[in-house]
Amino acid sequence: MRQHLFAQASELSSQFARRGAELDRLGLPPRDEIEALRQAGLLSALHATEVGGAGLSWLDGLRLVRIISRGESSIGQLLGYHYVNSQYVYWAAADARQAWVLGAETVERQLYWGAAVNPRDPGLVLERRGGHFVLNGRKTFSTGAHVSDRINVNATLEGKIANFVVPTDRPGYVAHDDWDNIGQRLSDSGSVEFRDFPVYERDFILPLAEPFDPPQVQATFNTPLIQLVFVNFYLGTAEGALAAALDYIRTTTRPWITSGVSRASEDPHILERVGELQAALKASVALADVAASAVEAALSKGRSVTERERGDAAIEAYAAKVNATHVALDVTAKVFELMGARATAAHYGFDRFWRNVRTHTLHDPVFYKAREVADFALNDRIPVVSLYS
Amino acid sequence: MRQHLFAQASELSSQFARRGAELDRLGLPPRDEIEALRQAGLLSALHATEVGGAGLSWLDGLRLVRIISRGESSIGQLLGYHYVNSQYVYWAAADARQAWVLGAETVERQLYWGAAVNPRDPGLVLERRGGHFVLNGRKTFSTGAHVSDRINVNATLEGKIANFVVPTDRPGYVAHDDWDNIGQRLSDSGSVEFRDFPVYERDFILPLAEPFDPPQVQATFNTPLIQLVFVNFYLGTAEGALAAALDYIRTTTRPWITSGVSRASEDPHILERVGELQAALKASVALADVAASAVEAALSKGRSVTERERGDAAIEAYAAKVNATHVALDVTAKVFELMGARATAAHYGFDRFWRNVRTHTLHDPVFYKAREVADFALNDRIPVVSLYS
Amino acid sequence: MRQHLFAQASELSSQFARRGAELDRLGLPPRDEIEALRQAGLLSALHATEVGGAGLSWLDGLRLVRIISRGESSIGQLLGYHYVNSQYVYWAAADARQAWVLGAETVERQLYWGAAVNPRDPGLVLERRGGHFVLNGRKTFSTGAHVSDRINVNATLEGKIANFVVPTDRPGYVAHDDWDNIGQRLSDSGSVEFRDFPVYERDFILPLAEPFDPPQVQATFNTPLIQLVFVNFYLGTAEGALAAALDYIRTTTRPWITSGVSRASEDPHILERVGELQAALKASVALADVAASAVEAALSKGRSVTERERGDAAIEAYAAKVNATHVALDVTAKVFELMGARATAAHYGFDRFWRNVRTHTLHDPVFYKAREVADFALNDRIPVVSLYS
Amino acid sequence: MRQHLFAQASELSSQFARRGAELDRLGLPPRDEIEALRQAGLLSALHATEVGGAGLSWLDGLRLVRIISRGESSIGQLLGYHYVNSQYVYWAAADARQAWVLGAETVERQLYWGAAVNPRDPGLVLERRGGHFVLNGRKTFSTGAHVSDRINVNATLEGKIANFVVPTDRPGYVAHDDWDNIGQRLSDSGSVEFRDFPVYERDFILPLAEPFDPPQVQATFNTPLIQLVFVNFYLGTAEGALAAALDYIRTTTRPWITSGVSRASEDPHILERVGELQAALKASVALADVAASAVEAALSKGRSVTERERGDAAIEAYAAKVNATHVALDVTAKVFELMGARATAAHYGFDRFWRNVRTHTLHDPVFYKAREVADFALNDRIPVVSLYS
Repeated sequence: MRQHLFAQASELSSQFARRGAELDRLGLPPRDEIEALRQAGLLSALHATEVGGAGLSWLDGLRLVRIISRGESSIGQLLGYHYVNSQYVYWAAADARQAWVLGAETVERQLYWGAAVNPRDPGLVLERRGGHFVLNGRKTFSTGAHVSDRINVNATLEGKIANFVVPTDRPGYVAHDDWDNIGQRLSDSGSVEFRDFPVYERDFILPLAEPFDPPQVQATFNTPLIQLVFVNFYLGTAEGALAAALDYIRTTTRPWITSGVSRASEDPHILERVGELQAALKASVALADVAASAVEAALSKGRSVTERERGDAAIEAYAAKVNATHVALDVTAKVFELMGARATAAHYGFDRFWRNVRTHTLHDPVFYKAREVADFALNDRIPVVSLYS
Repeated sequence: MRQHLFAQASELSSQFARRGAELDRLGLPPRDEIEALRQAGLLSALHATEVGGAGLSWLDGLRLVRIISRGESSIGQLLGYHYVNSQYVYWAAADARQAWVLGAETVERQLYWGAAVNPRDPGLVLERRGGHFVLNGRKTFSTGAHVSDRINVNATLEGKIANFVVPTDRPGYVAHDDWDNIGQRLSDSGSVEFRDFPVYERDFILPLAEPFDPPQVQATFNTPLIQLVFVNFYLGTAEGALAAALDYIRTTTRPWITSGVSRASEDPHILERVGELQAALKASVALADVAASAVEAALSKGRSVTERERGDAAIEAYAAKVNATHVALDVTAKVFELMGARATAAHYGFDRFWRNVRTHTLHDPVFYKAREVADFALNDRIPVVSLYS
Repeated sequence: MRQHLFAQASELSSQFARRGAELDRLGLPPRDEIEALRQAGLLSALHATEVGGAGLSWLDGLRLVRIISRGESSIGQLLGYHYVNSQYVYWAAADARQAWVLGAETVERQLYWGAAVNPRDPGLVLERRGGHFVLNGRKTFSTGAHVSDRINVNATLEGKIANFVVPTDRPGYVAHDDWDNIGQRLSDSGSVEFRDFPVYERDFILPLAEPFDPPQVQATFNTPLIQLVFVNFYLGTAEGALAAALDYIRTTTRPWITSGVSRASEDPHILERVGELQAALKASVALADVAASAVEAALSKGRSVTERERGDAAIEAYAAKVNATHVALDVTAKVFELMGARATAAHYGFDRFWRNVRTHTLHDPVFYKAREVADFALNDRIPVVSLYS
Repeated sequence: MRQHLFAQASELSSQFARRGAELDRLGLPPRDEIEALRQAGLLSALHATEVGGAGLSWLDGLRLVRIISRGESSIGQLLGYHYVNSQYVYWAAADARQAWVLGAETVERQLYWGAAVNPRDPGLVLERRGGHFVLNGRKTFSTGAHVSDRINVNATLEGKIANFVVPTDRPGYVAHDDWDNIGQRLSDSGSVEFRDFPVYERDFILPLAEPFDPPQVQATFNTPLIQLVFVNFYLGTAEGALAAALDYIRTTTRPWITSGVSRASEDPHILERVGELQAALKASVALADVAASAVEAALSKGRSVTERERGDAAIEAYAAKVNATHVALDVTAKVFELMGARATAAHYGFDRFWRNVRTHTLHDPVFYKAREVADFALNDRIPVVSLYS
């Protein structure tokens, strides 16, 4: 099954790559592409075999994200977000049975999970109405808004924070068409609005919490894991850019007039640069995998995992984030120097790799991620838990 | 007059900046913008006062290119190309009177000069027909094809190279609408075609030459000067990007949640980075001016300038080119880290700065420019004259 | 046993670190330090348990090199060279029994193995004399010349290449005191001379070979492995430099007067930089381990390993080499910016980290290692086997 | 005279370069070298022609510093410090006549001026005793302590700051032999002690001031000028390193075995790198000169110069400082990659260039200089005047 899923991912990635420039230009919600992930069984790759999933490890799941991102960066992002959003209930749900029921349904129907939880943008309010609740308000950015079947939500309820999962086909869910950014154009990350959207007691995952009241440790693993999703789709995008460039050099780039070589692929300067980019990329990928294993090992301790263990593992993920940010930006910018002037023709769309990485690496400032890594090394402080760390 | 032209350039630059994102999106031949340069008198800034020009130095002319590029990179490029193309005849024309006549007409009618001379793309053939000549063929890239009033052409004639200047309103001149690249989208750099286009003896500038037969030294200054045009529009574009970013930080960027500062403009990491980019930019601009003065000093020796003097000066320009390439790429990529995630909204178009620089810095590989600089320093070899050096 | 050896290595590393500045200043052959490795059992860590070794993997052996290098870079280098030199006979010896005999003796007496094989410096000549051979000539660089008990030698014999292992206590072995370089000052890498040094048939490892006649594949693994030794002692040295810097910042660096913080370890700029260096170092270390596993997996195929398999694995090692070179240079240079001006006092000797890395990373040009990585990625060519690749 | 001084400086620089490695190893107070500057007339190059000086501009003076630093970095530093210390009185002295008297004496006797003013190290106390004063205390770092004829001092007197100039041959002046750092080893920057050292009313330059009470604007130009001295000796050192490397490549470096070229100076990778370093160095030098002209122009306004004008000019100097720091570190570290492994032999001493730059660039943290540049660009704030800015 594992091998099958990796083969499927590679095949889909190649298909996405061939249409990458066009998909980027259109920048529409990727309904067909998510459907392709669904058909391939990739949406349930991380679910336990007990509920019909493939039971893959996080290390493997993140590698699948990387593979898909080689072909199309937004789809890789969406797959990774879905993994975190749909696994989250297993760690967070107060009632373990609830998580398994949600999981089983997700696998059976191959549901896609989104989220509307960004703490920098508080805007959702839950009110009691009759025997249930109604949700109102708007989140500026909700990745996968149009394609989500389930959505993980944070909202305020009488001064406290409520966390729940709801189907998006209830009345009152509106995904707006306002995502128009320079990169990750298929990530469907526009605003989402809830208008008297009904929420029921059974939808709640965590008990109502005071704001800033940290939940139990295990429930906070979504942050290091979503950061590892970032890492892997940045690196996958960079791998995709480099692969496209190598193909272009082999087939299209003309040797420079004073180079003295007959094929661009023998140009010493192109070779040196390719080797440098390749080496940097391999190192960053190696760290991504090391960090995935570290976070997964900590997570596997379940409810007994300590804050310190979570912190130690998170630091690996955040170091990987810092490194992947720089490497992916560098690779996607420099591939042009390998390919030459004609590779800037718009129909190739080779700039989409850089625009994709440039856009999402701003999610949270790399300066502050570097500081967290340093605060651990220098001052023995683990990161303060938040949806950014 | 000089002060007036600088003020005009600044004013136009600001106007272009305000519409920069939209102009980039449309990517049309910039007829209005060239008209604005014309109205402002900028097209004749370098022409001698004797023919009605402003008599500005190259140093000043290149600074005007830099200023305009702060607002819109392609327009800066077009202004600079015009300066080289329209001044070229003064150094190259076998008959000095011919140059003055062309110059006087250019100033009087504020004509824009383009070129179709790229040696990597030989495609124009001149044939004798009756008492004159006809030109046929196509050049893949001719910057300013739609807006040029005069065009400087290289073509083969019976195995030799003919160089002439012709008006574009003769029958048989076709500027195609096939420029669609990721950057310099207003530079109107699509293909140009000549179909039985008439050319007359009087249009010839240089005597017919054997291919690879180097012309007299003075006539080869178009290369270091066009490279300095590149340098200055790269740097102007980077200055424009940084200015836009600083404005955005001051007005829009929110301080990061763990930064402890109340305004993004007080964030230590943003400050450090701004200082670094600013310092690198100032150094590159300083070298651009030093190189402009060196090339101008050599050029001012007229027909007595030696190959060695041309080589010494060209090396300054090529060193400036290498440095400006790196600095402009770096600045235009990193401004995003200063502004934060929301600055990637497509309507700002802040990626156009990087796309512009990324596109044109591939004109000739920076590796080989660095090698020319090194060959001079290490092996005391001046650059071999070509349209790339 | 494994755990014990790692603990011993850490303990020795700390001891070396405390005396690092002084050892560097003196730059003497490290007899005491090699003796300490011997006492700790580290010299036989990789030998099979059948001959009394600890049976550690190459991955572990290279990590031991990294640990020792944190304390003293030259000793780490010497340990790694010994591992390669003393394991080499297992892959290369035509007669397997010969290797086991040499191995058993090495473990029993905890012998240190050096080498005199550099192909850029051909200078050793073997001649038949009586029933044996005599070796004459000089090698400019032989790491560990004074401390080697056994030495692996390449010499020419009647136009062919002879490869043999000999004890250094035979008459005619002279280690010169001419190693005085700016880094790796304890590496004892001066010249070695052989004066009518006796060599016997039984000392030969490989059959006599034509020059440039590639040996069987397995016997060529010394090159990727020695390159991984480089990688790991570069990275260990960088880790040592960073650890020393963090300690200094915590205890000694004064906060800058305009920083607004009360301890240097809270300075935002120092923190950002520490995080960046740490992230880069972790990535490079991760790749070092990935590459070690790849090379070890290929090597474990024994005589059946193919050229392609060797090439695939070697590329991982060479990519790690390229990356580690840059990272180690960067870390060891930048630690000063974290510590401040007073850290340049000579008695700290903090510059030794950079001098060590700077010196040995020139062993073979990083440009050409990058090219090999690129030639594989771009042109599907595996490295041409040599003592440099 | 100007030309003569430049020729003298070049000649001395070459002499120093030849003995550079040895001078660095010894690290003694450079009595002979300062004597050579004295004989050459370089100590009075900036003094007005009215008092017998050469009347050179600051731009020229700083270029002389750069030239000398190509040969020996510490001597360049000492020359630059002297220029600032000995010119300071012209701007600062309350009584203009006093400055001219000191100047005339300095030129006539070719005196060398040092300073003991570092505000991070307050340790000098002045007390009234009889009709004069006595100075007691110690400054940790006083560049040129052994070679200074005059010394500029800040000390506290009854809670206020006194500033005066005294001859070092009065009783009670003790220059200690405690300068032993990894770089600038000839800069004679050890501690200086005053033991009941007599000071007279006539030695005072500025009126007694409250601590942190800013003096009149003109008297604060020592800071931007000393920063420009730093800039120019960093860049001179880097130029010296590159020149030494080019010479070594031409004469000594062997082409790499797989390079396919017959001389190292034709190696494409070496060439590319040389070109890059050269271009970066030229840009930084260009900015150094631009900044020198800006500071000099502001200074030339005399007592009418405003804080804002001083700030505008200082920012140019500080941008140059930031850039020169990076460039000089980069060049002096990378020259080894051009020269190859054997260039690390200790007798060449090629590491001294990097050690010199590495040591002094820590004088004040480059992070905070970058912030000052940014605070000006982003927040329109001029630097707060201090001995660091």
